[in-house]
Amino acid sequence: MTDHTPISDLSAYMDRLGADAQIAASALRLASESQKNQALMAMAKHIRAGADTILAANTQDMDAGRAKGLTGAMLDRLQLDDGRIEGIASGLEAIAALPDPVGIEDKRWGRPNGLTIAKVRVPIGVIGIIYESRPNVTADAGALCVKSGNAAILRGGSESAKSSTAIHTCLTAGLKDAGLPETAIQMIATTDRAAVGMLLSGLNDCVSLIIPRGGKNLIARVQTDARVPVLAHLEGLCHTYVHAKADPQMAVDIVTNAKMRRTGVCGATETLLIDKHIAPSLLPLIADALTDLGCELRGDLKSRELAIGINPASDEDYATEYLDAILSIKVTDDIDDALTHIAKYSSGHTDAIVTADDAAAQKFLSTVDSAICVHNASTQYADGGEFGFGAEIGIATGRIHARGPVGAEHLTTYKYTVLGTGQTRPV
Amino acid sequence: MTDHTPISDLSAYMDRLGADAQIAASALRLASESQKNQALMAMAKHIRAGADTILAANTQDMDAGRAKGLTGAMLDRLQLDDGRIEGIASGLEAIAALPDPVGIEDKRWGRPNGLTIAKVRVPIGVIGIIYESRPNVTADAGALCVKSGNAAILRGGSESAKSSTAIHTCLTAGLKDAGLPETAIQMIATTDRAAVGMLLSGLNDCVSLIIPRGGKNLIARVQTDARVPVLAHLEGLCHTYVHAKADPQMAVDIVTNAKMRRTGVCGATETLLIDKHIAPSLLPLIADALTDLGCELRGDLKSRELAIGINPASDEDYATEYLDAILSIKVTDDIDDALTHIAKYSSGHTDAIVTADDAAAQKFLSTVDSAICVHNASTQYADGGEFGFGAEIGIATGRIHARGPVGAEHLTTYKYTVLGTGQTRPV
Repeated sequence: MTDHTPISDLSAYMDRLGADAQIAASALRLASESQKNQALMAMAKHIRAGADTILAANTQDMDAGRAKGLTGAMLDRLQLDDGRIEGIASGLEAIAALPDPVGIEDKRWGRPNGLTIAKVRVPIGVIGIIYESRPNVTADAGALCVKSGNAAILRGGSESAKSSTAIHTCLTAGLKDAGLPETAIQMIATTDRAAVGMLLSGLNDCVSLIIPRGGKNLIARVQTDARVPVLAHLEGLCHTYVHAKADPQMAVDIVTNAKMRRTGVCGATETLLIDKHIAPSLLPLIADALTDLGCELRGDLKSRELAIGINPASDEDYATEYLDAILSIKVTDDIDDALTHIAKYSSGHTDAIVTADDAAAQKFLSTVDSAICVHNASTQYADGGEFGFGAEIGIATGRIHARGPVGAEHLTTYKYTVLGTGQTRPV
Repeated sequence: MTDHTPISDLSAYMDRLGADAQIAASALRLASESQKNQALMAMAKHIRAGADTILAANTQDMDAGRAKGLTGAMLDRLQLDDGRIEGIASGLEAIAALPDPVGIEDKRWGRPNGLTIAKVRVPIGVIGIIYESRPNVTADAGALCVKSGNAAILRGGSESAKSSTAIHTCLTAGLKDAGLPETAIQMIATTDRAAVGMLLSGLNDCVSLIIPRGGKNLIARVQTDARVPVLAHLEGLCHTYVHAKADPQMAVDIVTNAKMRRTGVCGATETLLIDKHIAPSLLPLIADALTDLGCELRGDLKSRELAIGINPASDEDYATEYLDAILSIKVTDDIDDALTHIAKYSSGHTDAIVTADDAAAQKFLSTVDSAICVHNASTQYADGGEFGFGAEIGIATGRIHARGPVGAEHLTTYKYTVLGTGQTRPV
């Protein structure tokens, strides 16, 4: 199925993929926790056993990537080695070890007429996942879908096609070992772009959700073209606001970590807002610490009057997600000024306040409308592991269904069971 | 704003509506429970005080509707009288009396690094609501949005434009009395269809959710054209399955109620599935009871051999939501046969089993994938009031965010607040 030979009738092929996924979803929905976990453990075993095959496929992708002139960053995302393959396998085992999110009763209540109503977690159905060059997403996304009882249709990037196909073979072998349908995780076996359009159309109502993972162009295309719901996983323009009553050392520690721990992750702080009452004493310390770590600073006029080594910032800077060792800085008059700036520029991912003033913290946490609002900690905690969710399929920055780290529990929906003793409804 | 005079620059008008709604949403998000409830109570007061004005506007709509040749059913949906206006006012008071869904902490947990994470309910933002001829939706939908802290942009049907505008005037008067922005509930002041397309495009990312209320054509258009998430409120093709071990009298009572209590509601049963082991004795009783109530019966061959007065059913019948005094009947071999039929034909709204056998009930409840799965009760319980949610904006039959009755609590989303003591993340 995933040999990347030309497909003569793409539309018929995609429709079959959708129909097969829906059948698989019905089986997965009813699969026991132990059967799903058995499949995930078997997948890990096949990944380890197939390491040489996966690495050989990856070498082909890497060679083609170099020939195509992929950037160093893209090649790094594409490259696998023994350590990364072990990471994929142990990631599968970690997903197996998570609690089963399906069947959990969120609530149960009685009604005056004697009916008992329970709200129960159920899988979503068939999830289409469109991603770019990281081949490990094949395993992560497929496994999270299986854990949460959903069937997956995967569409990876063309650069990683051979690596992803080799990984996918291990996943379906694990499904087979556990007696689950191999069609529970399908990979689109063509790099034809028209296949993406068909997937986004929902394949005759077979697909219930699309999750894109990749750069902004991919997300934008998916959001424009999809005819089914999209759980969008964007990057983040995150702020750290240092309030007038911040503990100075804590502020230095948090800002340097929030910016520089990793500069390429979506939870990295891109803009420092600092209160004008504390900036004269504190900004020079923060600026020095960041400069020592190799961070470029771009600030407004006030900030440049207070500390050395800060270049001028434009409005464009405050709207830019650098994903690099660059920080925008603005000196704010008060908390309202900071909140206004955040409301204007935040991407709704993660924003933090550093303060020892509980009232200011409470105001910040209730006013900022981002998926993750932080008090006195780094903005770089936005992933499933740090939240205790285990593996995650991405960070959602939309408004409905799921926000923040999206783990297995967020790939479920609910239904109501209504238990009666013969109730009929009066007219 | 809602005088239905021609708008010279529709695009600029709609963009302003979106921008104003987003500003109003920011205010509503932070509004206190008492302020929101004060607005809702004031709206009810203005509805009662403005009854004559609303009725005069409704008379104009009714006259125009008759002149246009609207059907009796459409005119009935359009018509207001003193009783219906009192119903609108008391509906607003009932929404005021609901618990505030905003700010509720779904969960709070600690992490090994000392961070405390809370999952807190917040409003969605700006909700666009597109509906057809019932003018009362103006009040219901606007009030549910305000209760849940969301700004609403309403687009009613052209037939009810004058009635809806008169009601809308009372709503904004109530908002003003409570010191909330009048733009918290806006009505599109033109019947130009292009305005709907603009609303569906999201108005420069100002609109976070679209809720269509109306017939299938409206829903289909919205689902095709929307560039923002849609919470779809479809009608229902609901089943009642009478299992071999059903209590006969309970089965007769439930089936007659599920079909005939009201035939035009989305929770009405459209198909009776009855086990072949109980059908010979029970189907004639059910058929007689339904025939006495004026219901037309359409069944498969087996059912017509067992009871009199049943017309032949086609495959098309099983796929039809009659919304009328017509019932499809099929005699099933066993529970698996019934489950297969439901999986094929159910619209995912409500499906019920009548049985005294707990294992069969459990199998049915866990296998059927509909929003509401019922044991030993009528299918006609699918609304917010019966679930204890209070007023509802419709019944969702999609897979994500909300399913079943959608009340104020389902018009919220969540964010995480992360409370630290200076935590920074290790590399």
